[in-house]
Amino acid sequence: MLELRLVQGSLLKKVLEAIKDLVNDANFDCSSTGFSLQAMDSSHVALVALLLRSEGFEHYRCDRNISMGMNLNNMSKMLKCSGNDDIITIKADDGSDTVTFMFESPTQDKISDFEMKLMDIDSEHLGIPEAEYHAIVRMPSAEFAKICKDLASIGDTVVISVTKEGVKFSTRGDIGTANIVVRQNTTVDKPEEATIVEMNEPVSLTFALRYMNSFTKATPLSNTVTISLSSELPVVVEYKIAEMGYIRFYLAPKIEEDEDETKP
Amino acid sequence: MLELRLVQGSLLKKVLEAIKDLVNDANFDCSSTGFSLQAMDSSHVALVALLLRSEGFEHYRCDRNISMGMNLNNMSKMLKCSGNDDIITIKADDGSDTVTFMFESPTQDKISDFEMKLMDIDSEHLGIPEAEYHAIVRMPSAEFAKICKDLASIGDTVVISVTKEGVKFSTRGDIGTANIVVRQNTTVDKPEEATIVEMNEPVSLTFALRYMNSFTKATPLSNTVTISLSSELPVVVEYKIAEMGYIRFYLAPKIEEDEDETKP
Amino acid sequence: MLELRLVQGSLLKKVLEAIKDLVNDANFDCSSTGFSLQAMDSSHVALVALLLRSEGFEHYRCDRNISMGMNLNNMSKMLKCSGNDDIITIKADDGSDTVTFMFESPTQDKISDFEMKLMDIDSEHLGIPEAEYHAIVRMPSAEFAKICKDLASIGDTVVISVTKEGVKFSTRGDIGTANIVVRQNTTVDKPEEATIVEMNEPVSLTFALRYMNSFTKATPLSNTVTISLSSELPVVVEYKIAEMGYIRFYLAPKIEEDEDETKP
Repeated sequence: MLELRLVQGSLLKKVLEAIKDLVNDANFDCSSTGFSLQAMDSSHVALVALLLRSEGFEHYRCDRNISMGMNLNNMSKMLKCSGNDDIITIKADDGSDTVTFMFESPTQDKISDFEMKLMDIDSEHLGIPEAEYHAIVRMPSAEFAKICKDLASIGDTVVISVTKEGVKFSTRGDIGTANIVVRQNTTVDKPEEATIVEMNEPVSLTFALRYMNSFTKATPLSNTVTISLSSELPVVVEYKIAEMGYIRFYLAPKIEEDEDETKP
Repeated sequence: MLELRLVQGSLLKKVLEAIKDLVNDANFDCSSTGFSLQAMDSSHVALVALLLRSEGFEHYRCDRNISMGMNLNNMSKMLKCSGNDDIITIKADDGSDTVTFMFESPTQDKISDFEMKLMDIDSEHLGIPEAEYHAIVRMPSAEFAKICKDLASIGDTVVISVTKEGVKFSTRGDIGTANIVVRQNTTVDKPEEATIVEMNEPVSLTFALRYMNSFTKATPLSNTVTISLSSELPVVVEYKIAEMGYIRFYLAPKIEEDEDETKP
Repeated sequence: MLELRLVQGSLLKKVLEAIKDLVNDANFDCSSTGFSLQAMDSSHVALVALLLRSEGFEHYRCDRNISMGMNLNNMSKMLKCSGNDDIITIKADDGSDTVTFMFESPTQDKISDFEMKLMDIDSEHLGIPEAEYHAIVRMPSAEFAKICKDLASIGDTVVISVTKEGVKFSTRGDIGTANIVVRQNTTVDKPEEATIVEMNEPVSLTFALRYMNSFTKATPLSNTVTISLSSELPVVVEYKIAEMGYIRFYLAPKIEEDEDETKP
């Protein structure tokens, strides 16, 4: 039997909004340590990894490991029916082919049960080794989202270049070119407004803006985003989730900076 | 001659927004007691009844009973040109084929006259007898609107079941099922937030969500909605209008709860 | 060499939003006295004239007169990437076929360079003589915008009639007629809320609402609008830009008030 009670239910709504456009169907894996998901996007280019640790739930009961296949669009439809201050409980009986989402209003005057059919989804779990990165940038998530959105109005790819002074985002398209430099800045009033660059060696990598923009759907989950770059590894774009976990997006860099790709 | 001066003109705008999607053309009936409308929706399934009593108007002159056929979409276009704080006066000369809406800004610096052509509309006025209902539920109108909207994302029909403890709204669709229970609650700080159930006998009836959602367009008119249910009568969904009247929507229950209807 | 530094960069964004729907491509003319533009709309009916005087810029360097052809839609795309509090600098080297827009965030932590290709655009500069007008109306720009928008929901043209008492805006369409009278009012708390009529002789002129509505895109630039009317001249709809200039729109009146035009 599975029963996971999340007081801040709106977190789960935001998690679904962050991944449902990237992934159609996915297995949620539930074990004694937490509620997690790992899935490729539908074009098999990007990887999403979600973890919500059991400690983050008010009540967490998972008698044995279970993998529940869900259509994320349908799950999102149901979660949207919860109020923003609702407590959400995820429930499943052993061997059942359904999952139930229960929403309790803060006053307990309104209780909703939404039952959704589960799906059989083939998936293999990739082991993602801990790695050393050439550079790690932590910056305000809203700033990163605006940069990706702005650059996408000019070009299709972004070159992210990290130096000691800061990080540069560049694109080029039919109407011209754009370079946005964000300087390292640790002397801000609020820690979440800082931009911090940890660099072992300079790095300059090219990525498809379409995916970057998709990753920024997670912006409501966290004030900051961490971008880990290495020339031999996929970039990791990570949003921490309160005290309980994270969403990480992985995307391979484009190998050659082919001029033709940005000039259709 | 007809001259009806409504200080809170925005009420009339809200009335039109509440009914214009349901009814295309309708006769507004004006007598010494008030300004009213009764009309079937365009598919002849639901009935709307509006009453604005003469006492609610600052000035009310109606020399003789008159029935004015209007296209509600055009009337809405004109009323949308009024400011939210404007005083609205409805004027018609005897025998004229036009009606004039006059909008006065609060400072009297802007005066607008919108003249609209009247239409000949055949209609018969149904007598709606006062009836005894099995159950009457009064609840916050915004809550009812959210429930209807949420359930429509899952299924096509709603089963409304009333017991002493509260009222349950249920639906089922391709992606699963939903049950929302709202408990009776009279001990709230603000009376308009209460949910009050008056029940003579338990009742469980099925309705098309499309119409329920259409009725909730009247939500801006009132903080509360009253739902009167009886197994032998159409449901009445009523929104009171300030001190002066109401909008009531009537809809027949679906006779059989046919599983196939909700599973296309 | 050209280098124009505008502290209140959002003004330039608003200027582009005001004209980009009316004009596709245009030459910006830069001289020692200011940054200006004059262009016909794409259907050659209306004329736009923009002036930003050099005194309005924090730094203004223009070594020699230069005319820079730009696609306003692309320019708008780039300016939209600036933050609302950013300082914008326009830069161009002599003989270069590109222009650079530099955006500096208030904290200087984010610096963006957007480089856009210039275009060759044929254009002739019309001399617009100072003229005497029969009537000049100054009124709140938001009020004028609402009137044009409201009337366009009823008809295609607006008759603007000025008398000593005020100004009347009228239209007629399939669903009826509308008359909006705004009275002269100089005794208001805030000067920008005044409606002031300067009249030498009464005037009544007809204009296409489509263009009037397009002009009101400049509303965010100024709290007031000035409408100068004469039976022998195009109307001038002017929005002042802070301390530094203006946008003026010119539109010829419709010669005959042809009933058929408003009754398609």
